[in-house]
Amino acid sequence: MISVVILGAGNVAHHLYKAFFSSENVTVTQWYNRNIQSMRPFNNEVQLTDNLSQLIEADIYIIAVSDDAISELSQQLPFEDRLVVHTSGSVSPYDIDMKNRRGILYPLQTFSREANIDFSEVPLCIETLMRKDYDQLKELGQSISNNVKRVNSDQRASLHLAAVFVNNFTNQLFRIAHEITESQGAEFDLLKPLILETANKVQDLSPFKAQTGPAKRNDKKTIKRHLKMLDNEDHKDIYKLMTASIQKTHAPAFSIKKLKKIKKD
Amino acid sequence: MISVVILGAGNVAHHLYKAFFSSENVTVTQWYNRNIQSMRPFNNEVQLTDNLSQLIEADIYIIAVSDDAISELSQQLPFEDRLVVHTSGSVSPYDIDMKNRRGILYPLQTFSREANIDFSEVPLCIETLMRKDYDQLKELGQSISNNVKRVNSDQRASLHLAAVFVNNFTNQLFRIAHEITESQGAEFDLLKPLILETANKVQDLSPFKAQTGPAKRNDKKTIKRHLKMLDNEDHKDIYKLMTASIQKTHAPAFSIKKLKKIKKD
Repeated sequence: MISVVILGAGNVAHHLYKAFFSSENVTVTQWYNRNIQSMRPFNNEVQLTDNLSQLIEADIYIIAVSDDAISELSQQLPFEDRLVVHTSGSVSPYDIDMKNRRGILYPLQTFSREANIDFSEVPLCIETLMRKDYDQLKELGQSISNNVKRVNSDQRASLHLAAVFVNNFTNQLFRIAHEITESQGAEFDLLKPLILETANKVQDLSPFKAQTGPAKRNDKKTIKRHLKMLDNEDHKDIYKLMTASIQKTHAPAFSIKKLKKIKKD
Repeated sequence: MISVVILGAGNVAHHLYKAFFSSENVTVTQWYNRNIQSMRPFNNEVQLTDNLSQLIEADIYIIAVSDDAISELSQQLPFEDRLVVHTSGSVSPYDIDMKNRRGILYPLQTFSREANIDFSEVPLCIETLMRKDYDQLKELGQSISNNVKRVNSDQRASLHLAAVFVNNFTNQLFRIAHEITESQGAEFDLLKPLILETANKVQDLSPFKAQTGPAKRNDKKTIKRHLKMLDNEDHKDIYKLMTASIQKTHAPAFSIKKLKKIKKD
């Protein structure tokens, strides 16, 4: 049995708490936040505190607060030489105060308060500064997820950056599609199965192989018509840049096709 | 029972054929293509032909060929006053030769040869030039899909354009994420649950409400670090443009927050 104390009460903290609470191998000894209002519903399950000086002993302390607050909170911890990890994709383990042993438990997923997440599917990227702490952190991760990976800080930073592309930027493309369809009185809802299939497709196929459409085909007629239809200059710029990006990625394929054509002719 | 003839043997034609073949209300009378090689496996189920002059009578003729070939193929049809529809998102119904009655059956989905698609979930956008043909085309659509919508040509064009954003451009963002992670030796696979959840989230939530991340939070520190990490200039341009787009979309929210802050202070 691994005992943990969770510090913070945001979305990640809430989802971690629920996952740990459901696990047979973990006990949440205590849950800290400056303001314990949002944790009240869990009052009967776990000891809540808003006082750092009352933190009790546990195997692992998990700091799940906003990036900017990690360092300061870690300095205020009233103990030494215990394993303290944070859950951020972009903060260094060295941001945690050096009086404790340090590590990372980064869940690579988007969490919202309402949405239920199957935590067993969430990739957990773990790292510890000391080798001796690694096995225990791995065991903690594996008690809630089937997808625990050792990831160093450079790799974690690249995953965090890539996550902005596949999550935030992708979602903004959905938003633009919403604006485009609405402007013609068409239903955005009709795009939802396509959105799902686009995500499904790259579960088995590389994004390179999954690509289709006018940019990849270099279908100049359609591209021109689309650009004419877009009256929002920002949408036009995004259309041009993404089309150019696709064409650059698939340019070698064009060349090979051209080569074959030349050979055939 | 509605009888159809399919013209073309690409991905859309193949998926339509399978869907019609599985439906109790539709019989595929004949399947035409210039080259019937890829249709051979279906030789025992349906009459195949590569000769337009041998087309037999049916209620509806479905032209599922590339956009550029629709007009010419429709001119070559050796009959008049029958219902002929094409399956393109961007071609006008008037591109079909006027000797026949004309319409559209546009399945809004991405089809690849291998991937099995549950056709009952595919939105079918239908349109006919003559009112009297509408009911039959609707009946045909409903025999394979639970999501049949009347969509005029302007709306269909906007859906087709929006589909490029949510499918082709989104997939290119996945590709870029693949390049970013690979460059650091991190696994692209770790992003797959996030990719799925991003698509899942907007099934119930608007993309506006689903947005999170450094751009929306106006987290300048993270944005700056991300831009420094990107060494590919094209990726940098896309990061900047998408970040600006998110900030423009969510600017009113900033203002409201600022306003609240001012009121509080």
